[in-house]
Amino acid sequence: MNFCTSCGSKVALKIPEGDDRERFVCVNCETIHYVNPRVIVGCVPVYQDKVLLCKRAIEPRYGYWTLPAGFMENGETTPEGAARETWEEARARVSGLELYRVFDVPYISQVYMFYRCEIDDGAFGVGPESLESALYSEAEIPWDEIAFPAVKETLREYFQDVAEGRFPVRVSAIEYKRRNKE
Amino acid sequence: MNFCTSCGSKVALKIPEGDDRERFVCVNCETIHYVNPRVIVGCVPVYQDKVLLCKRAIEPRYGYWTLPAGFMENGETTPEGAARETWEEARARVSGLELYRVFDVPYISQVYMFYRCEIDDGAFGVGPESLESALYSEAEIPWDEIAFPAVKETLREYFQDVAEGRFPVRVSAIEYKRRNKE
Ligand SMILES: [Zn+2]
Ligand SMILES: [Zn+2]
Repeated sequence: MNFCTSCGSKVALKIPEGDDRERFVCVNCETIHYVNPRVIVGCVPVYQDKVLLCKRAIEPRYGYWTLPAGFMENGETTPEGAARETWEEARARVSGLELYRVFDVPYISQVYMFYRCEIDDGAFGVGPESLESALYSEAEIPWDEIAFPAVKETLREYFQDVAEGRFPVRVSAIEYKRRNKE
Repeated sequence: MNFCTSCGSKVALKIPEGDDRERFVCVNCETIHYVNPRVIVGCVPVYQDKVLLCKRAIEPRYGYWTLPAGFMENGETTPEGAARETWEEARARVSGLELYRVFDVPYISQVYMFYRCEIDDGAFGVGPESLESALYSEAEIPWDEIAFPAVKETLREYFQDVAEGRFPVRVSAIEYKRRNKE
């Protein structure tokens, strides 16, 4: 951040009075500009014993498979955002959303929230950010072509939870370079 | 938003190519400035059969009681943020954080995430944004002096869950003017 969104003057990093960390503060109008983590909302869309995945038509991880997910927008709830992303990326309408998996990704200041849900009538398609979409059973999942570690972990946990008949909400953090370690 | 954070030129609202909603776009460098929801993280800090509340020393709701909570910062996880806020507002160190309650507040584009946790050694104090702090049993909670509907609802659910011996993660949305309806 270089310039103030309010008045267009330069900003400088300094610790505001009563605060304990550096913020971007306008040198002219003194507005404090907070920069906060962003929320990514997504779904684990289920039909019968299968999960809907999308093959990414965009970078990063072009050509790899993922769960439908994207940045939460202003004015929506987290399940609304998750359902919207599922429509946009996989042209599926979903119901019965239940919070299922939270990932913190502190090194890029992101929080992922995945909702389990059912695909209405099992109908889906392909949105503009996807090359294709498909329903996969556990045995069919292309494990070596999953785009992100968080998605792979969520899928593994999901099929395990199906087997055990319980779906606890899990929270964990993804550390830097985790993908390379796998 | 009036000015571009990158170059200081004016921004204009327009729908970027491939997008479906208006964004602030710089008329000079064409940077798209996304504005996203913010996350508030907090705790339900427990010691024996009591919950720690703070009396607010700041607006809004000065003088009313609340659970320790505040804006999540970049570079931290949601439980780290919740624990940080509990230290800042109530000078309590907490352990065993478990996600407990999520509130979507779409009309102000906020997501609240409360973690249940235990207060180490039952020790607490008063941070600069609080007038006082206190441990309350269910019978002692000052129900008519709770700052926010989300806090009141979380406390009611918590004591109900204690009675039932189970702590499901709940997600719901808070609609505009809900406080006035109560
Ligand atoms: Zn300014
Ligand atoms: Zn610009």
